[in-house]
Amino acid sequence: MTQVRAVLFDVFGTLVDWRGSLIAELTAFGEKTGRRADWAGLVDAWRGAYQPSMQRVRSGEMPFATLDALQRASLDHLLEKFAIVGVSAAERDWMVSLWHHLRPWPDSAAGLAALHAKVITGTLSNGHVALLVSLARSGGMRFDVIFGADIFRHYKPDPETYLGACALLDLPPGAVMLAAAHNSDLAAARACGLKTGFIPRPDEYGPSQARDLRAEADWDVIADSVGALAESIRSSC
Amino acid sequence: MTQVRAVLFDVFGTLVDWRGSLIAELTAFGEKTGRRADWAGLVDAWRGAYQPSMQRVRSGEMPFATLDALQRASLDHLLEKFAIVGVSAAERDWMVSLWHHLRPWPDSAAGLAALHAKVITGTLSNGHVALLVSLARSGGMRFDVIFGADIFRHYKPDPETYLGACALLDLPPGAVMLAAAHNSDLAAARACGLKTGFIPRPDEYGPSQARDLRAEADWDVIADSVGALAESIRSSC
Repeated sequence: MTQVRAVLFDVFGTLVDWRGSLIAELTAFGEKTGRRADWAGLVDAWRGAYQPSMQRVRSGEMPFATLDALQRASLDHLLEKFAIVGVSAAERDWMVSLWHHLRPWPDSAAGLAALHAKVITGTLSNGHVALLVSLARSGGMRFDVIFGADIFRHYKPDPETYLGACALLDLPPGAVMLAAAHNSDLAAARACGLKTGFIPRPDEYGPSQARDLRAEADWDVIADSVGALAESIRSSC
Repeated sequence: MTQVRAVLFDVFGTLVDWRGSLIAELTAFGEKTGRRADWAGLVDAWRGAYQPSMQRVRSGEMPFATLDALQRASLDHLLEKFAIVGVSAAERDWMVSLWHHLRPWPDSAAGLAALHAKVITGTLSNGHVALLVSLARSGGMRFDVIFGADIFRHYKPDPETYLGACALLDLPPGAVMLAAAHNSDLAAARACGLKTGFIPRPDEYGPSQARDLRAEADWDVIADSVGALAESIRSSC
């Protein structure tokens, strides 16, 4: 029964099923427009390009840019690599916009509502504010506050993100929990003094997922759904 | 029937009754602790110190500080001026914290819920994020996003606030409306290209209120409640 005042969520993978959503949308697009392609492969490669593209910002190699810009640059490269031809600029923009409307996991919306009744809820995501607001609205996910990378102009796991969120909440890191499906995100949050909640999402990367299947440290809470995590949190209302 | 994608609200006076809330709490405190004082006068003077204290930040005379810090400095001075003695540091902190739990006007919560069903809703306040989250939770006011002065490290009417919010929403200013009870706030928002919604609050400053009783320009929407403003907004869901 951990006492925290706020629980902030990683979003991609932890609250929304980016892979299943994107594969479904792009496969339907391929059928509609008569393009046969390895859409699942494209989606996995697109996500694979995500960390390297953010790393260029983290390292200072390029100035801060939102995920929309990073995803668009990766997509342009990958469409070529996957030999998917004739995709217009407007269609590419639409593909990038799919990240704004990803399906929540079935337990996300109800679990967030239960948690909202107890403590402050928010996002702490490498998405940007506009994308996160869109995901929240389209997915029916309620948050008290939206923290995105563009507020801090840093990407996780830079400490400016975790500590920046605590500062804006005017709470000590020990009163704030990061909830995530990724051990590395939790390790970075713990290094900044935050509490940690692990929600494994064994289907995030599809049937061949090899990482983050289990907790790799003694996280403060380990729960198999947002609702189960909510049950483990004491109310501070 | 104005087409906007997001409506951002001024909070103090527009959504919450700071004056009535503070007078009620401080009068009760005075009765409980045996202090007779002009609590209403103190509250009006406290609010009177609000703009000058922010002006020191706007002008660069002092570095950015949140309203909690500014309000505390003003309070220390005013308790002395009003000859209210023996107020401990903890009691002063409590008085400052009252700004985190101000009563909404009767139409605020329901109007925000109606508006949320149509467009993105948020705050655009000189309060800081922690204070605004607390006001929203304690007052049952739903917002999709919280923008406070500490995100921009500027106070309204600095353009960095209005334009910073539009940038974080990834929307052009013309797709964002500021809703406020104060003509000067709306004028500054309009100068940045935002749409404007005026909700007069003729009781904000008590029975002797002389300003902001009516619209002083042709604001895009003029409505006597948040719900009436919501009715005038076309859905962009």
